Amino acid sequence: MIFAIDAFGGDNAPSAVIEGCMLAMQKNPDFSIILTGDESTIRDELIKHTYDSARVSIVHAPDVIDCNEQPTIAVRRKKESSIVKALRLVADGHADCFISAGNTGAMLAGATLIVKRIPGVKRPALAPILPTLQGPVMLIDCGANADCRPEYLKQFAYMGTAYMKNVIEIENPRVGLINNGSEEGKGNELTKASYSLLKESDGINFIGNCEPRDIMSGDYDVLVCDGFVGNAILKTLEGTFFTLLKMLKTELMSGTVSKLGAVMSKGAFKTLKSRLDYKEYGGAPLLGINGGIIKAHGSSDAKAFASAIDQAIKLVSGDVTGKIASAIAANPIDWEEL
Amino acid sequence: MIFAIDAFGGDNAPSAVIEGCMLAMQKNPDFSIILTGDESTIRDELIKHTYDSARVSIVHAPDVIDCNEQPTIAVRRKKESSIVKALRLVADGHADCFISAGNTGAMLAGATLIVKRIPGVKRPALAPILPTLQGPVMLIDCGANADCRPEYLKQFAYMGTAYMKNVIEIENPRVGLINNGSEEGKGNELTKASYSLLKESDGINFIGNCEPRDIMSGDYDVLVCDGFVGNAILKTLEGTFFTLLKMLKTELMSGTVSKLGAVMSKGAFKTLKSRLDYKEYGGAPLLGINGGIIKAHGSSDAKAFASAIDQAIKLVSGDVTGKIASAIAANPIDWEEL
Repeated sequence: MIFAIDAFGGDNAPSAVIEGCMLAMQKNPDFSIILTGDESTIRDELIKHTYDSARVSIVHAPDVIDCNEQPTIAVRRKKESSIVKALRLVADGHADCFISAGNTGAMLAGATLIVKRIPGVKRPALAPILPTLQGPVMLIDCGANADCRPEYLKQFAYMGTAYMKNVIEIENPRVGLINNGSEEGKGNELTKASYSLLKESDGINFIGNCEPRDIMSGDYDVLVCDGFVGNAILKTLEGTFFTLLKMLKTELMSGTVSKLGAVMSKGAFKTLKSRLDYKEYGGAPLLGINGGIIKAHGSSDAKAFASAIDQAIKLVSGDVTGKIASAIAANPIDWEEL
Repeated sequence: MIFAIDAFGGDNAPSAVIEGCMLAMQKNPDFSIILTGDESTIRDELIKHTYDSARVSIVHAPDVIDCNEQPTIAVRRKKESSIVKALRLVADGHADCFISAGNTGAMLAGATLIVKRIPGVKRPALAPILPTLQGPVMLIDCGANADCRPEYLKQFAYMGTAYMKNVIEIENPRVGLINNGSEEGKGNELTKASYSLLKESDGINFIGNCEPRDIMSGDYDVLVCDGFVGNAILKTLEGTFFTLLKMLKTELMSGTVSKLGAVMSKGAFKTLKSRLDYKEYGGAPLLGINGGIIKAHGSSDAKAFASAIDQAIKLVSGDVTGKIASAIAANPIDWEEL
């Protein structure tokens, strides 16, 4: 397996990215990496580590697409950027998977433009894995498609199922539709139509609507929604989590007894934080692209980036791209793009 | 002020509802109540309390719309239900505000059908008040309208502004648009068009997009969104909150030291829980109806119901309905319903 790695993506690049690669390489001997970015800076970072040099190569990319650039324009103009060069490696078959903690929009636009979609896939989707009370759940789409059609959501269900089956090894992933009520017939125009489509689809274990209060219940393995709603849910989760911790800290620090209690509970807080930590689950795969694409969190440290590589290993060895291609080919949708 | 109160709405009706009325009446001498529901059951509850009988009357309503009934059908058929009879009191001018902890859908449908919209209002909106790191924020709409047009969102902004100004006494409420990015130009079709409308609107202090991770930041007073997204956000907040507390409890109870720490931190947890408690903020007003409508939480206890009544007092004395009517009349929208 060969991974194309954007050495200049994310808040802590390139040092955390390269350190993350080293951590992952120590754990697993079955892959090599191609780092894209400014060659001399990468070499300066690599010197700090001991590693098998046969497993590491560099493709010089002097440009960087930063997180505030307009994605499509940046991808078209910055041909020499670390993202574009790495995507090109996947498109040309020199790498099996692309991993970056950089500009999400540029990754989405670049993956679609350069690596291209799996034949039959209408829209690729960004699909983070969230922790629940029991096991992980995939929320798909979380931001690639702000406006969706029911047919897209149906395809998201196939893509999510292929991933959870082959990467997380869940035999028959339970698919839920994010909706504003649990009963059939609830929803907005999109979810009502999507419900009907999902219900009739072969090869999906559709178990019905999921109200967002039950996302973390552990009752679902794949949750489908449009990218605007998924993005709102993801950011609400994030905001609530940090706000609660902040409020709790203020409360705990306001009294002597509770302050002492907080110190004594510290271990438990830490365990909880790691249980909820996206770093443990790697990054978010972009599914539907004709090659592996993993978006690591922008603030990834070395450990988080190493988890994203672990995820890439499973994505490639489980042939998720091939499995999605088969599922999409076997379940064509009755609607053509205008 | 006279309030029409659905004595049979909610999980703890009628006892918690009636006890809540008593609590509110002890605190404030300026209103009287009309309870709707089965008269003899209400009388049996009232006997348990000491109160000024001149302030309490009963309108017999033998039927109840339960929480699983299809709203529009239930409202049309169950003319003798506690919800319909109470709404009728508002529609006929016998009461200034309706308060219920019952079936939300039936309240929405009934309010629109019986009390009717304020002239010019396209869609009434359900608008809960959420706690933040500093002060409350209104999220509008949270479920009345699953599919929205930009014009509806503009009106939500006017309605939310009128409420926060006259009930929460915020001089110039900051209005944000829930969106998938902070910059102008981000969004789905609805939010892009809504941004342009809000930006050009007089009488709204529109400060731009709000990503849902910042809902609880305290940087906004009114946040507008379509009812599907608002509902998803509200339920995600709720789910995250309870899941986190559950996870934390499990972690804390897994070790002796942290167990002791948890006991010592108990006061802090309790304060946090009450800071986040919807009961402190009363219920969610349904804005845009030609009369006061307050939806109390389905699981309201007496204290929560009393808060909903406090809210009704402010809603009526602040003449929110009149203020909304003026704002809507002063800012007509350039689009007619088909």
